[in-house]
Amino acid sequence: MSELRWDPLKKNWIIMAHEKGRIPRDFFRERKPRILSVCPFCYGKEEKTSPEVFVVRPESSPADTPGWQVRVIPNKYPVLNAEGRPDERSRGLFRSMEGVGVHEIIIETPDHERGLADLSPGEIVNVLFAYRARMLALRGDDRLRYVLLFKNYGEEAGEGISHSHSQLIAVPVVPPVTAAEIEACREFHESEGDCLLCAMLRQERAEGERIILENEHFIAFAPYASGFPFEMRIFPLVHCHDFSRITDQEMASLASALKDVLQRLKKLLRDPSYNFILHTAPPPPQAEENANGLPGCYHWHLEMIPRLTKITGLEWGSGFQVNPMPPEPAAAFLREVNISALDEPFDIIYRFSQE
Amino acid sequence: MSELRWDPLKKNWIIMAHEKGRIPRDFFRERKPRILSVCPFCYGKEEKTSPEVFVVRPESSPADTPGWQVRVIPNKYPVLNAEGRPDERSRGLFRSMEGVGVHEIIIETPDHERGLADLSPGEIVNVLFAYRARMLALRGDDRLRYVLLFKNYGEEAGEGISHSHSQLIAVPVVPPVTAAEIEACREFHESEGDCLLCAMLRQERAEGERIILENEHFIAFAPYASGFPFEMRIFPLVHCHDFSRITDQEMASLASALKDVLQRLKKLLRDPSYNFILHTAPPPPQAEENANGLPGCYHWHLEMIPRLTKITGLEWGSGFQVNPMPPEPAAAFLREVNISALDEPFDIIYRFSQE
Repeated sequence: MSELRWDPLKKNWIIMAHEKGRIPRDFFRERKPRILSVCPFCYGKEEKTSPEVFVVRPESSPADTPGWQVRVIPNKYPVLNAEGRPDERSRGLFRSMEGVGVHEIIIETPDHERGLADLSPGEIVNVLFAYRARMLALRGDDRLRYVLLFKNYGEEAGEGISHSHSQLIAVPVVPPVTAAEIEACREFHESEGDCLLCAMLRQERAEGERIILENEHFIAFAPYASGFPFEMRIFPLVHCHDFSRITDQEMASLASALKDVLQRLKKLLRDPSYNFILHTAPPPPQAEENANGLPGCYHWHLEMIPRLTKITGLEWGSGFQVNPMPPEPAAAFLREVNISALDEPFDIIYRFSQE
Repeated sequence: MSELRWDPLKKNWIIMAHEKGRIPRDFFRERKPRILSVCPFCYGKEEKTSPEVFVVRPESSPADTPGWQVRVIPNKYPVLNAEGRPDERSRGLFRSMEGVGVHEIIIETPDHERGLADLSPGEIVNVLFAYRARMLALRGDDRLRYVLLFKNYGEEAGEGISHSHSQLIAVPVVPPVTAAEIEACREFHESEGDCLLCAMLRQERAEGERIILENEHFIAFAPYASGFPFEMRIFPLVHCHDFSRITDQEMASLASALKDVLQRLKKLLRDPSYNFILHTAPPPPQAEENANGLPGCYHWHLEMIPRLTKITGLEWGSGFQVNPMPPEPAAAFLREVNISALDEPFDIIYRFSQE
C-alpha cells in the first residue's frame, strides 16, 4: 500500500509507503549509552563555557557557579559570528552575506543523566521560560530577523554533547522553511479568510484518529501528512502567531504536554533520537505586515521528529519524504503507552534572575 | 569565520561556518566493512529478485541467470505501487493520491566487492546506458511525470544492501525539488534570456578555484554555495535540459568524469558514504511548454553529496544548510588527490540487449 499525501503548510508530497503492518519494534535503533566524561555542561564546570547570558537560579547564588536549574550560554563553536553587520555582497551570480548572528545553548538541567523527557513539568517550564526570555531579548538586535529554537537529542539527531540541551540560532534572514510556511498561510488567509493551521487543527480534531493528547491549552497529534514515522506536532488550541506571547499558565500546560509526548516516545521506541523545532512567526517587519490586513495568519507550534529512518538520495534529490509508518497507527501506538507517573505534582518553580 | 551564501537554483541560504582550517581528516567517519552474506544481487541469486526489466549481458546468456554486467530489476520493497491510477482525492484540507509509480534497482556490477568508483569507465558507461534506457522506457507510461535516478552509497547515505546499485523512482507528480529548480531557471530565463545554470557554469569556470576537473564534454566543481562538505556537481559543458539526450560519446566522457571524482572522494575521505542525484527536466508536458517560448531553460546535471555531517534540527527546521568546509579548500583538496591508475584503457563495452 502506498499513498501520496499533500502537506499544505510545507507544500510537499509525502510518500506513505506502508507495505505491511509495521510496529514500533521495527523502528528500534541501537542507542549508545551516555558516557560521563568531563562534561562542560555539568555543575562545577561553568568556567569551561562562555559566561551565562540567562539563567534560572536562586537569587543568592553567583553567576557561573553551581546552583542553577537552566543555564543559557553562547555556543563555544558558533556557526554564526556575534560581531559584524549582515551586509550583502555580490559578484555576478554569486551573492553572500557576512554570517552574523547568535548561537546559544540552553542547558536544560544540571543533571547529566536526565533527558528533557525525564524532567518534571516544573523543570520544563523553566526551559520554556528561557526560550521566551532569549527570544524576546534577541528581538532587540536589529541585525537579526528570526530566532530559531530547536533540539537535537541523540546521535542520529546530531547531538554533540550528551547532556540535555537545546539550541538557539538568531539569523539575519528569515529561514527558507519559515518563509515558505508563512507564505502558504498568507495565501490561504487571502483566499479563505482563515488561518490555515486553525483549519487543519479543526479537521484533525474532527477526525480524531491522529490525536495523541489534548489538555487545557494544547493539542498534540500525528499530522495527516507526517513525513517521519511517529512525527508529532504540538499546537496551542487558541490561535496565536507568536510563541513569545505565551502566558505562564499556557507554559505550564505546554510543559505538561511536552513531557507527556516525550515520555510516550521514549517508552514506545526505546529512547529514540529526535529533533524538535519551534515554529513561530518572525518579529517585525513581518509582524507589522501582519497587522496591516493579515493579522496573525501564522499559528506557532512545535514540530517533533523522531529520527528513525535515514535521509537518502531520494529525499534530498526529490524533496519527497518517504514515511513507512502512517500517522493513524502511529498515533494509536502513542496513545496506548502507559505513562502513569505523570500525575505527580509540579516541582516548585525557581526564582528567575537574568544576568 | 562565518558567511551566508545564496544558492540561486535551490533558493536557499547556506551557512558556511568555517571556524578554523579544517582538513579532510576532520571528516573521516567509521565505515563498517561490507559483509558478504547471501546477497540477492550476486551471480547465481537471480531467482531471489524480481525478473530483470533491462540488462547488459552477452546475447547468448539467458535472462535471470549469471553472465550479466548491469541488471535492472523492480525493487522487491517498492515505495510506490506498480498498478493503479494516480487519481487525486480530497477530504477538506487533506489531499491524497494513490502512490502509483515505479521503483527499480540498477545493479551496477556482478562483483559484490567493488563500488561504482572501482568500476572501469567502460563498466560505468553500461550503468549510464541503463539509466538512459529505463528513463526513456518509463516516459511511455502516461501516469508518470518524472523519473528520478539516485544512488545511496554507504550506511550514512541510507544504503540497504551493500552491493553496488543505484535506484530509480518514477512518480506521478513532478518532485518538489525539481519543480522549484525548474521554476528558478524559468524566472532567470525570463528576466535574463539565458540559462541560469549556463551562467553559473561560466562564472565557475571564470573564477576557476572551485573546479575539480574538466574533460571534453563535462565539468566537475564544488559549487559556490555548497551545502555539504566536499559537495560536487557534474555538468555537461554544452547546454541540454534532458539527460536522456546524452550521446554515446558524451556517455563515455561522463563515465570518465564520474570515475575520476568518485576515486578522488574515496581516496581523500576514506571511502565515505555519499548520495548522488541526477537532475533533469521532466518530459512533456513540461518539455512542450519549454518548446513554447522557453526552450530548454533547464540544464541537467549530477549532484554528488558526501554524507559526512549530520542533518540536525537546524537544517530541518530552518532549511538552512550548515557547511563547515567551504568549496574553495574542498576543491583544492580534491584536485590534489593522485588517481594515476585512471589512465588505463576502457574495457570492451558489452552488447546491450533489452528484455
